[in-house]
Amino acid sequence: MAVNTEGVKELRTRTGAGMMDCRNALVECEGNIEKAIDYLREKGLAKAAKKAERVAAQGSVFSYIHTNAKIGVLLELNCETDFVAKTDEFKALGHELCMQIAAANPQYISVEDVPAEDIEREKEIYRKMAAEEGKSAEMAERIADGKINAFYQDNCLLEQNYIREPKTKVKDLVVAEIAKMGENIVVRRIARFAIGV
Amino acid sequence: MAVNTEGVKELRTRTGAGMMDCRNALVECEGNIEKAIDYLREKGLAKAAKKAERVAAQGSVFSYIHTNAKIGVLLELNCETDFVAKTDEFKALGHELCMQIAAANPQYISVEDVPAEDIEREKEIYRKMAAEEGKSAEMAERIADGKINAFYQDNCLLEQNYIREPKTKVKDLVVAEIAKMGENIVVRRIARFAIGV
Repeated sequence: MAVNTEGVKELRTRTGAGMMDCRNALVECEGNIEKAIDYLREKGLAKAAKKAERVAAQGSVFSYIHTNAKIGVLLELNCETDFVAKTDEFKALGHELCMQIAAANPQYISVEDVPAEDIEREKEIYRKMAAEEGKSAEMAERIADGKINAFYQDNCLLEQNYIREPKTKVKDLVVAEIAKMGENIVVRRIARFAIGV
Repeated sequence: MAVNTEGVKELRTRTGAGMMDCRNALVECEGNIEKAIDYLREKGLAKAAKKAERVAAQGSVFSYIHTNAKIGVLLELNCETDFVAKTDEFKALGHELCMQIAAANPQYISVEDVPAEDIEREKEIYRKMAAEEGKSAEMAERIADGKINAFYQDNCLLEQNYIREPKTKVKDLVVAEIAKMGENIVVRRIARFAIGV
């Protein structure tokens, strides 16, 4: 990896070390950011490594605890301005998404979040199921592709059917809100804990 | 891996398939549970793979949203009976732990949860810092051991100083509750989301 301005900037943000120290650390570590962080800490030039830089975002954290406290949900919903974060509409969206997560237990936020190996494992199972039923390899592949879409719909929050209006996808709820508010809204992180599961 | 009763039992719990099917699947897959799950699904004998079996536990899920909804915490706290889960004492403990997590941002629950490579990375930094200061290798090792304890105290919930009584460790709070209640209490899972971090 080359030592470029981008790298120096990221290193500065993550360590708070000076510009020249960051540049030297990167040269020393051949452009490897993680190694450069350790190098700066070893030299006493950085206190602690911060998490990777991310786009500064506004938004709110929402929670929902289901009756009897046996299921709980935590959600980070981002928007662009604190003004939007404070609107009733935004709060209502956060609440609905929490209810959805509690009820429909998504494993991922979007299709992009499903690891490639999970997809391959699922598809391999579908292929073999089809083969067991005597389908040709070509047909089995087509069946697997169809079933993986059903897998996304079951397991990805944004692809799920909205619990209150099963003909609407959850992502349509978010898109409608984006259109109303005129700024981007992103489901950043979700967590769902259920007792005994 | 051998095909044993334990394996058959776990496979049954995770797939809901019949005893003989589970045994056959394990034989077919040489005792590998994950492969046996896929095998059963391929044969249409299991609908979906459940998560690894875990001890049936009681308890509650707690949440805490800090002022302005910029920080949120989710906590699963387990106990042995629903009777204890419903006590005010247990609820108070859950609330205090959430406040602790919001304020002190632990990365892990206990020392055992810190991955070996994270420990080694930290220790290597401490060793090199000591070496930079001209310490001998032996001395540097001793310094690294001392600093890793401070790392645990900063980053592991149960090792942290309790925010309301800094002389008490968080684990002492839990232990006191266990003594009072007469049954085991375990912090199972934690999540903490902060906007813009």
